[in-house]
Amino acid sequence: MRKKDLSIAIVGATGAVGREMLRLLAKTKLPLRNVRLFASARSQGKLLSFRDKSITVEKLTKDAFQNVDFALFSAGSSRSKEFAPLAVKSGCIFIDNSSAWRMDPNVPLVVPEVNAQALANHNGIIANPNCSTIQMVLPLKALANHVVLQRVIVSTYQSASGAGQSGINELIQGSRDALDGKNVLNHTFPVPLAFDAIPHIGNFLADGYTTEEQKMLAETRKILSLPHLPVSATCVRIPILRSHLEAVTVDINQEVNIKSVRAWFDAFDGIVLKDKLQSAGYPTARDATNRSDTFIGRIRKDNSLPKTLHFWVVSDNLLKGAAYNAVQILEALNEQ
Amino acid sequence: MRKKDLSIAIVGATGAVGREMLRLLAKTKLPLRNVRLFASARSQGKLLSFRDKSITVEKLTKDAFQNVDFALFSAGSSRSKEFAPLAVKSGCIFIDNSSAWRMDPNVPLVVPEVNAQALANHNGIIANPNCSTIQMVLPLKALANHVVLQRVIVSTYQSASGAGQSGINELIQGSRDALDGKNVLNHTFPVPLAFDAIPHIGNFLADGYTTEEQKMLAETRKILSLPHLPVSATCVRIPILRSHLEAVTVDINQEVNIKSVRAWFDAFDGIVLKDKLQSAGYPTARDATNRSDTFIGRIRKDNSLPKTLHFWVVSDNLLKGAAYNAVQILEALNEQ
Repeated sequence: MRKKDLSIAIVGATGAVGREMLRLLAKTKLPLRNVRLFASARSQGKLLSFRDKSITVEKLTKDAFQNVDFALFSAGSSRSKEFAPLAVKSGCIFIDNSSAWRMDPNVPLVVPEVNAQALANHNGIIANPNCSTIQMVLPLKALANHVVLQRVIVSTYQSASGAGQSGINELIQGSRDALDGKNVLNHTFPVPLAFDAIPHIGNFLADGYTTEEQKMLAETRKILSLPHLPVSATCVRIPILRSHLEAVTVDINQEVNIKSVRAWFDAFDGIVLKDKLQSAGYPTARDATNRSDTFIGRIRKDNSLPKTLHFWVVSDNLLKGAAYNAVQILEALNEQ
Repeated sequence: MRKKDLSIAIVGATGAVGREMLRLLAKTKLPLRNVRLFASARSQGKLLSFRDKSITVEKLTKDAFQNVDFALFSAGSSRSKEFAPLAVKSGCIFIDNSSAWRMDPNVPLVVPEVNAQALANHNGIIANPNCSTIQMVLPLKALANHVVLQRVIVSTYQSASGAGQSGINELIQGSRDALDGKNVLNHTFPVPLAFDAIPHIGNFLADGYTTEEQKMLAETRKILSLPHLPVSATCVRIPILRSHLEAVTVDINQEVNIKSVRAWFDAFDGIVLKDKLQSAGYPTARDATNRSDTFIGRIRKDNSLPKTLHFWVVSDNLLKGAAYNAVQILEALNEQ
């Protein structure tokens, strides 16, 4: 496409992810003619700053996508199902951060460093994967380029911001209340998150997994084109504000040198190694927050099983896990 | 033994674990003649309440164990190495919460519900396992009574109190400072813990694991008498005050019905099930803190592999993970 004067809409512009999308667009080299911001009626009329001006937030309506080239959509699954077909009908390419279209066989599910080739064929809708999946498939792909993945087990340590701005606010207020000896209330989280950990993100399925855990299975398989790869996740919310951390175990088909594994990770676009056997020699949320890279440390071979690797993956769930990956998709599409 | 008038010493009585030991002793039905409290010189002369009286904290000296039947020792590894032989020479049975003696082949490493039989033979020193190990071996033993364990993978979510009272204090102060926009300092933890997660407990070993992770391998094998069981841990400190949480994956030798697994857990002494597919239908730190039981939830079969189970284990690291298990050992020894 490579248009010279793009019109871009951000839908859900006042949310935690939408605000990051706007910040990233302000820094892009894309030739922007126009940026429009949409949100629910509640936020209509709000002003958000963009570069040297302010943009008024509009109410999302059915004709919002007319003359819009790309929509960055972060307004939930049910609204996505309603508005994506309307956007496509208007000739707009719809880059969706919700889970609505991810498993649709006609919709590419893309992490550009991993499967940009999937963008070659689309019907106007592109799905951005779940945050916890995106940061994991980077190192998995780095491995899969050299060995055969046989099994993945992951435990996540996910931040409050995965539940949006209301999650952030609830953790801050709850932490203050807990420190002051007050009762901690919860509305966004299923139980109070302050000074606790909650093994429940999304909804429970009949098999005992949650939807968040199921996404990590289904989306990883789709992105890596490994439809039978066993991927079992335990997804846990912990009382941190931003960035997700993951302990990943991978069984592979052969014994490898750990130095090779480090080199494969290091050479992979989007990955930054922080892997020394010393205090602060590994990434934590502080390293990843407000950064677009995915950080990897604690790389080691299993102490009993020669064909098993373990590592620790940290990334900003609002950036690479959402807004940044979506903007990368937009930039890649515009290069096509 | 079953003495009628026991003299018991708590060493490290002013620490986070020592204080719990004292609270538990106050509730025990053991026939206590005398309770003596020891700590470092810094705490000498402090008064700690016990039942209807106060006990003065004494400085730990070489002759502290004379006329003491049992010592509950929670004053670190190097002091344990120094004082255990002196205690044994005085005829005192030394129940040690440090890691000093755990892997000594002549020292029983005991979780009473799992391997009380190991108490039959000892040379005066009994080791209390590491907190993160204790809560995991309960469900592992419940399974091992019925099937063959083939592999264990665990990711931990460990509280600040695992680093003692200074860890608790540092997390509280750090959380306040973070909320107030101040710089968060760290002395006890390798990096600031408030609103972050740290994949580093103990010290790093050459193979890339930490000592905490290595303990979960070596101690689990010893307690379960399964010297070749693969056990790989990733141990992570998270910003909660008390109780450890663990995501455990177990490969077994046969396919089992998940209802049977629940029944095995439920019937096992010391385990409480909390396992419903709904909000708050799983244990968190709030459930376990100040309780002596170990709570299990999120029990499920792997979504790809029929001989793999996953579950979530939560226990108070200062109680079952330390003080309570030690007092259970004491009570079991006194019944011998």
